[in-house]
Amino acid sequence: MFRPAPHVLAGDTADVYFLRTRQVMEAEGLNPIATMEVFPHRDGLLCGMREVEALLREALPKGAEAWALDEGETISQREVMLRINAPYLSYALYETAILGILAHESGWAQAARECVEAAQGVPVTSFGARHVHPLAAPYLDYAAIVGGCASGSTPMGARMAGREPSGTMPHAMIICFGDTVKAAVAFDKHVEPDVPRVVLVDTFLDEPEEALRVAEALGERLQAVRLDTPSELGGVTPELVKETRARLDQAAFERVQLLVSGGVTPERIRHFLSSGAPVDGFGVGSYITSAQPNDFTADLKEVEGKPIAKRGRIPGITDNPRLKRLI
Amino acid sequence: MFRPAPHVLAGDTADVYFLRTRQVMEAEGLNPIATMEVFPHRDGLLCGMREVEALLREALPKGAEAWALDEGETISQREVMLRINAPYLSYALYETAILGILAHESGWAQAARECVEAAQGVPVTSFGARHVHPLAAPYLDYAAIVGGCASGSTPMGARMAGREPSGTMPHAMIICFGDTVKAAVAFDKHVEPDVPRVVLVDTFLDEPEEALRVAEALGERLQAVRLDTPSELGGVTPELVKETRARLDQAAFERVQLLVSGGVTPERIRHFLSSGAPVDGFGVGSYITSAQPNDFTADLKEVEGKPIAKRGRIPGITDNPRLKRLI
Amino acid sequence: MFRPAPHVLAGDTADVYFLRTRQVMEAEGLNPIATMEVFPHRDGLLCGMREVEALLREALPKGAEAWALDEGETISQREVMLRINAPYLSYALYETAILGILAHESGWAQAARECVEAAQGVPVTSFGARHVHPLAAPYLDYAAIVGGCASGSTPMGARMAGREPSGTMPHAMIICFGDTVKAAVAFDKHVEPDVPRVVLVDTFLDEPEEALRVAEALGERLQAVRLDTPSELGGVTPELVKETRARLDQAAFERVQLLVSGGVTPERIRHFLSSGAPVDGFGVGSYITSAQPNDFTADLKEVEGKPIAKRGRIPGITDNPRLKRLI
Amino acid sequence: MFRPAPHVLAGDTADVYFLRTRQVMEAEGLNPIATMEVFPHRDGLLCGMREVEALLREALPKGAEAWALDEGETISQREVMLRINAPYLSYALYETAILGILAHESGWAQAARECVEAAQGVPVTSFGARHVHPLAAPYLDYAAIVGGCASGSTPMGARMAGREPSGTMPHAMIICFGDTVKAAVAFDKHVEPDVPRVVLVDTFLDEPEEALRVAEALGERLQAVRLDTPSELGGVTPELVKETRARLDQAAFERVQLLVSGGVTPERIRHFLSSGAPVDGFGVGSYITSAQPNDFTADLKEVEGKPIAKRGRIPGITDNPRLKRLI
Amino acid sequence: MFRPAPHVLAGDTADVYFLRTRQVMEAEGLNPIATMEVFPHRDGLLCGMREVEALLREALPKGAEAWALDEGETISQREVMLRINAPYLSYALYETAILGILAHESGWAQAARECVEAAQGVPVTSFGARHVHPLAAPYLDYAAIVGGCASGSTPMGARMAGREPSGTMPHAMIICFGDTVKAAVAFDKHVEPDVPRVVLVDTFLDEPEEALRVAEALGERLQAVRLDTPSELGGVTPELVKETRARLDQAAFERVQLLVSGGVTPERIRHFLSSGAPVDGFGVGSYITSAQPNDFTADLKEVEGKPIAKRGRIPGITDNPRLKRLI
Amino acid sequence: MFRPAPHVLAGDTADVYFLRTRQVMEAEGLNPIATMEVFPHRDGLLCGMREVEALLREALPKGAEAWALDEGETISQREVMLRINAPYLSYALYETAILGILAHESGWAQAARECVEAAQGVPVTSFGARHVHPLAAPYLDYAAIVGGCASGSTPMGARMAGREPSGTMPHAMIICFGDTVKAAVAFDKHVEPDVPRVVLVDTFLDEPEEALRVAEALGERLQAVRLDTPSELGGVTPELVKETRARLDQAAFERVQLLVSGGVTPERIRHFLSSGAPVDGFGVGSYITSAQPNDFTADLKEVEGKPIAKRGRIPGITDNPRLKRLI
Repeated sequence: MFRPAPHVLAGDTADVYFLRTRQVMEAEGLNPIATMEVFPHRDGLLCGMREVEALLREALPKGAEAWALDEGETISQREVMLRINAPYLSYALYETAILGILAHESGWAQAARECVEAAQGVPVTSFGARHVHPLAAPYLDYAAIVGGCASGSTPMGARMAGREPSGTMPHAMIICFGDTVKAAVAFDKHVEPDVPRVVLVDTFLDEPEEALRVAEALGERLQAVRLDTPSELGGVTPELVKETRARLDQAAFERVQLLVSGGVTPERIRHFLSSGAPVDGFGVGSYITSAQPNDFTADLKEVEGKPIAKRGRIPGITDNPRLKRLI
Repeated sequence: MFRPAPHVLAGDTADVYFLRTRQVMEAEGLNPIATMEVFPHRDGLLCGMREVEALLREALPKGAEAWALDEGETISQREVMLRINAPYLSYALYETAILGILAHESGWAQAARECVEAAQGVPVTSFGARHVHPLAAPYLDYAAIVGGCASGSTPMGARMAGREPSGTMPHAMIICFGDTVKAAVAFDKHVEPDVPRVVLVDTFLDEPEEALRVAEALGERLQAVRLDTPSELGGVTPELVKETRARLDQAAFERVQLLVSGGVTPERIRHFLSSGAPVDGFGVGSYITSAQPNDFTADLKEVEGKPIAKRGRIPGITDNPRLKRLI
Repeated sequence: MFRPAPHVLAGDTADVYFLRTRQVMEAEGLNPIATMEVFPHRDGLLCGMREVEALLREALPKGAEAWALDEGETISQREVMLRINAPYLSYALYETAILGILAHESGWAQAARECVEAAQGVPVTSFGARHVHPLAAPYLDYAAIVGGCASGSTPMGARMAGREPSGTMPHAMIICFGDTVKAAVAFDKHVEPDVPRVVLVDTFLDEPEEALRVAEALGERLQAVRLDTPSELGGVTPELVKETRARLDQAAFERVQLLVSGGVTPERIRHFLSSGAPVDGFGVGSYITSAQPNDFTADLKEVEGKPIAKRGRIPGITDNPRLKRLI
Repeated sequence: MFRPAPHVLAGDTADVYFLRTRQVMEAEGLNPIATMEVFPHRDGLLCGMREVEALLREALPKGAEAWALDEGETISQREVMLRINAPYLSYALYETAILGILAHESGWAQAARECVEAAQGVPVTSFGARHVHPLAAPYLDYAAIVGGCASGSTPMGARMAGREPSGTMPHAMIICFGDTVKAAVAFDKHVEPDVPRVVLVDTFLDEPEEALRVAEALGERLQAVRLDTPSELGGVTPELVKETRARLDQAAFERVQLLVSGGVTPERIRHFLSSGAPVDGFGVGSYITSAQPNDFTADLKEVEGKPIAKRGRIPGITDNPRLKRLI
Repeated sequence: MFRPAPHVLAGDTADVYFLRTRQVMEAEGLNPIATMEVFPHRDGLLCGMREVEALLREALPKGAEAWALDEGETISQREVMLRINAPYLSYALYETAILGILAHESGWAQAARECVEAAQGVPVTSFGARHVHPLAAPYLDYAAIVGGCASGSTPMGARMAGREPSGTMPHAMIICFGDTVKAAVAFDKHVEPDVPRVVLVDTFLDEPEEALRVAEALGERLQAVRLDTPSELGGVTPELVKETRARLDQAAFERVQLLVSGGVTPERIRHFLSSGAPVDGFGVGSYITSAQPNDFTADLKEVEGKPIAKRGRIPGITDNPRLKRLI
Repeated sequence: MFRPAPHVLAGDTADVYFLRTRQVMEAEGLNPIATMEVFPHRDGLLCGMREVEALLREALPKGAEAWALDEGETISQREVMLRINAPYLSYALYETAILGILAHESGWAQAARECVEAAQGVPVTSFGARHVHPLAAPYLDYAAIVGGCASGSTPMGARMAGREPSGTMPHAMIICFGDTVKAAVAFDKHVEPDVPRVVLVDTFLDEPEEALRVAEALGERLQAVRLDTPSELGGVTPELVKETRARLDQAAFERVQLLVSGGVTPERIRHFLSSGAPVDGFGVGSYITSAQPNDFTADLKEVEGKPIAKRGRIPGITDNPRLKRLI
């Protein structure tokens, strides 16, 4: 699942000085057993360890050892969460990749966690694939699910986390049909029955109006409608959710769920919930994708069993009883 | 150079609803000529267009047309910078990838540009590979160079931008040697002569002290020293740069350049320059990698030649005389 | 027009101590010629002078004199804008009413002026009657017109200022008809032809949708539509105005004007205009009615020709060459 | 007491579109039984219901019903506090007046309440008549008393609330006498004995000095002195109150009370009390009169027994068990 | 110890108007028994009373009395902390000196107290002599010790407080020796054995490096090293303290203490302690010397037994049960 | 004038480590020619150089040299404003005193300068002696005059600056007389005729009232009245100054000047002047005395002609063409 790409293994995505370090040290016949420790710059959630583990298993020779915290555990600022003890050149080239995997994914996972905690049990789905490079998008969805999301929108991301991808239909499809009800009926006719029928209801008319028309057309088979009002029209508000709920209920569609997307943040989620808006699911995009990476730092702390460190760091191994043997 | 990955072409990184849209519309025999327009959410710098162009060239059928702004051009909030006119299903699956490429890379390029402008001609290098996923790292370096950076630290990223990668040596190598001077001498002995000799001088002793020792050991061949003082010791300050410069000059090493890295931001760059610190180059990492993506939105504006749009958007093509024919 | 009410003349709305002052001074046979000066607490616009003049003409005996600034002139903090020279008991009882008229109306007029200046020529109408006591409402509209508004919504207020009252139709009427188009057609059928046909278009469907339907029903006779989107749905936005304009224009209703109301303030007006939203008129309510009164103070400065004052004030008449003889 | 004025009943102070609504609906023969609900925009205190009740009793036909909260009850943002069920045209014309009465008076009452709560039992009197239009002034005093004030300064306002008006003497009277003691003695000689002797003591000399002189002149009959130091001399301070108290006590005038006015706000009241200043009463003016109206909104929620509403509102009657039958 | 200087007794440092007051009152034969009370402008710590007592003992005649709070007691804003009852001319000339002694010393003592409280038992030493006039410096150290400091750096100041002065060695001495170890060895050789060996370790090399070298040279006799990193290099940080501690401990110099100076404030002290930095002593300079004086005011409150006071103050003696008989 | 005190010369007010430095270096026979440079921590005004010069003239041997800026010159942050070249032990002991004199006096002088600049030509007098230790008070007045004050209140301070001390009379004297007029008349009778008659006029009655009474009593001989209203009564305000001026002028005392004291700061001075208050002189106390010292630092930069420095500083002499030969 997390098999490292060949060009990553070859060092083509590494800081070039690690390639030169290997060149120089090999020429000097120098390859000491060295202990490296890694710590994050902020408190947060650890994500990326499984991918790092896969990389280390490819790289480390027999006899090497590693200790780490688990995927999804909380981490504290400057807490050592990974320790590697091995001949230095066996892993020197992968410092860049290890830190990058952890930084990017832990940053996303923590932001997802903040949404999930704000939602107090209401499911949250990752809709951010469109805000990151497509090669990174599946890792975003994976990290969001580690952070507590119910699923993500990309097949590859959901698959890495053992989930089904989640999605409804785009505005573009409705516009191609020229009518929300026609699009909904066609979707219902052609898509596998185990895919939930969830319809976007803000394309042509007022959300409560479109919701009612779609509910009448699909009846029992309609699982949910999604409100995604654009910011030009003020975005989705708690009052709009309540009004849609009330109008659906007055027409006896109490079973149809309401999903909300567009500009959703933990603060907005708390605002919806504290306003009593009956939301059945949130879709979150840019809040997670605009989270800053949680940068990590790696330090050599022992060489051939002797404590050493650069200035500003304390020589020798840092005790952390939470670490478990990884390799 | 920017050939799309097979799993991206297959839609495995796309929002799943585009796969379902294709399934439904094909079943209905619906594939109208549709015009899609794309615009950014913030002012900034456009990056990712070459990669998007490569994707569209794979996807669009004969007769399809596209207009766009160029890589590296400035873009304004909500300005249409890409327009596609083609059978909808030929490109429906790639909306997620197109938006993601543009968002991630334009965000990085703009942050790089801010550093470059602050530096007023002093070269800036992208050192952020360690803060992003390794599959994304080369695109980060490419975007930083589009934003004006002199180079980046990854071989693949520099190559995409037609540059040589830039790097010195890691603290870890110096620690393996146990002595900065020994490490510098070994580097000088074994690395190709066209690679500049740039030595990190904060590992074991005071920066001015180590700089002097290295300068004495390498003499004329030393191109630069890099100050990367950790934040635990207060980071690099303008006064430290000045002191190092003065001590090198007093020992007649006026030719040795001073590079600065660690926590560098446009504000810090301006502070160094306005304090008169004689910096010859800046390395920037997390300022660029923690930039938020500049999110993009795509809208269908015409179907079979007729203006249409979802609520909140204005139907029909948006005039933008800056657009040039792309395909 | 501004004839004082009998109970105001009788002192029933005055601070009771003025009634007692009259009682005591009459009993003592004391009624000196006294000079009173009045000044405002803030910079602003003077409003209420015509009503004050009407009150003084009822009150002052032959030989009394008064000087003042004109209705609608700008006034400065602490600038003397009214001076009365008369036997003290002839006007003692009206100090409360004079100050109250000036304070309340000048406060409203200044707030209206701020909206009018922000609107740069786009007409502004006072819609605030519903936020003040009905006995005060006409004076609010009068003050708003002195401040530059095109008109107000109350017949009596507009009449005092020599204008026609301005209004469209309430949501309640549309709801009684159950259909915006039916209500509009009935209005058009029964109301005098010189009353402009202006229809509210946010009651049942999206504003652009309702606007189009009404425009099709009334044709040439429709002068304007009014957007009054409730805050629950995000209020009116510049984008909504632009979208409505675009959809009306695409259907060849370029002549139909767009009026905006609901939460309008000078800041919002500037936002609409700087966003390029083609607004043809603004309706302002609570910004004007929630303006604080511009409090005024009255001081005796001469008694029987001799300078005198309470502590903290400078005895004697204050020179102000802007004052003109009023009575 | 709260009999509606004829021009209010005639709609001359109403938004003109209600007059046109009546014209159109009568012409169409349309007058459905409609249910209107009213709610406030802020939390606060309800004031104006008695006046609204008097208006409705004049307007509604037999068989009509209304429910409401009581005068002086607390109200919550968006809480329905009035519901009318009657033929729509019987009350359409009065929506403006009903909302205006409630908005203006509830705003004043709430501000008064804030002062009264800050004063923790020390009496507060409304002195703001000079900051509002004389036709509104009595309603201001009435609202202030509903908010907890001991009384107000206008005879008509106090009478509406069943109190005696409260006042001392103006600076102008003292200046006419040319001497505070002479003015106080004349007041004492000529005014009915049941009116408390309260003398302003900041006109010509220091407050403690004038207080002592007046106390010596009036002896037992002096109930209180009022400190109203102008802002030019720093306004009244807790230290000035304490000094006046100390000097009066040292001269055995412990019985003379100290009233404070001028720039009094809840914050200033708390400052006086927490500083231990022995204030026996506060006079409040502009804090109450510069309170913003608490705007109210009216919505039709049922027509001929069927739930209906404009977009953004929930159709049908809103349950509020606090409502009591009014008519 | 606190004998007043002759020119202070002669009035040469007094406000000149006290000299003139003596001249005028003597010429008029006026010298009433007067009671003066003194109070501070801020809450804080009382310092200077012993010096004031010495001054009063020189000045006051037989039969005069004084009451006061003790050196080092807390004082409240406006609390009377000194009362003098004596013929006015016996102490008139010393009002300036009394207030100045109390203001300057109480300001310093309070600032010292804030550092001491922040340090929670870790000793704090006054190093501020270089920031105040040399005639004031001993009083600064005395006040700092009253505020809780362990000692101060000036011999005279420490002596006044009954302590030994505290100090290590200046950078200048180390620079004259050209080598930190040589300077330390010479100090150890020539200075009396009861003076603690405390060596500055930031002059030529990194602090941990110099600390190790000095510890190796002096062995058991080294009591502490002082870190005084200049602000140009980021000042002392908690991480630097921890690193120095770790490197000393790894070399078995656990007994050597760590003192920190340079920019130390209560906030910095709290930061060091909450970060777990093992600091054994703080040296504080400019935080104490830049404290504002706690100004005092003196008022005559009785003359010949009769209450009197200037406007704004309450005549007569102020009760304060905390006062004790001083003279 | 600036002869150093014996205990300062003996090192009793110095940091004790300088005494130990002398002891160690003498024992080692070490006394190199050393160059010390001194610079301030903030921009400001230089004060104390004359006193420092007197100290150096006592201390330095033949052949020693010093360069400096002049008393009263502006200085920039970190600008070298004093350089000493002499055997180190000749001046080592005086580093503390030199820095302390400069820091304390430059801080005061700069604060005085800010007041003087705000006053735009209106004379400012230093009244702060009562806020500093009496041994420091004359140096405060000297520094204030260097900063531009017209004079100070202490005889010794004024004498050091070649001025006459400035003062009026204390409240205490007026209270002893029991009457402001009596005190003024006695002062006029007994004090030398060349001392200006300036009377405090806020002791018993309103300032304008007392000013008029004193003016009538002293006639032509009254030069000025001083307003020093206590903060309990709101302090002196521009309006009070204007009122006093107006009442004096109406009584033909246009020649009597108005001095203002109590809480005077540059901001208050600007407020008085921009309000048009006709102030003829300001007395400033705590603004100057609560100014923070402008700390200075001394560095050895050459020993026996060779550049040297501690870490963080640049070895060797710093060029400053503004320096002039002092010794």
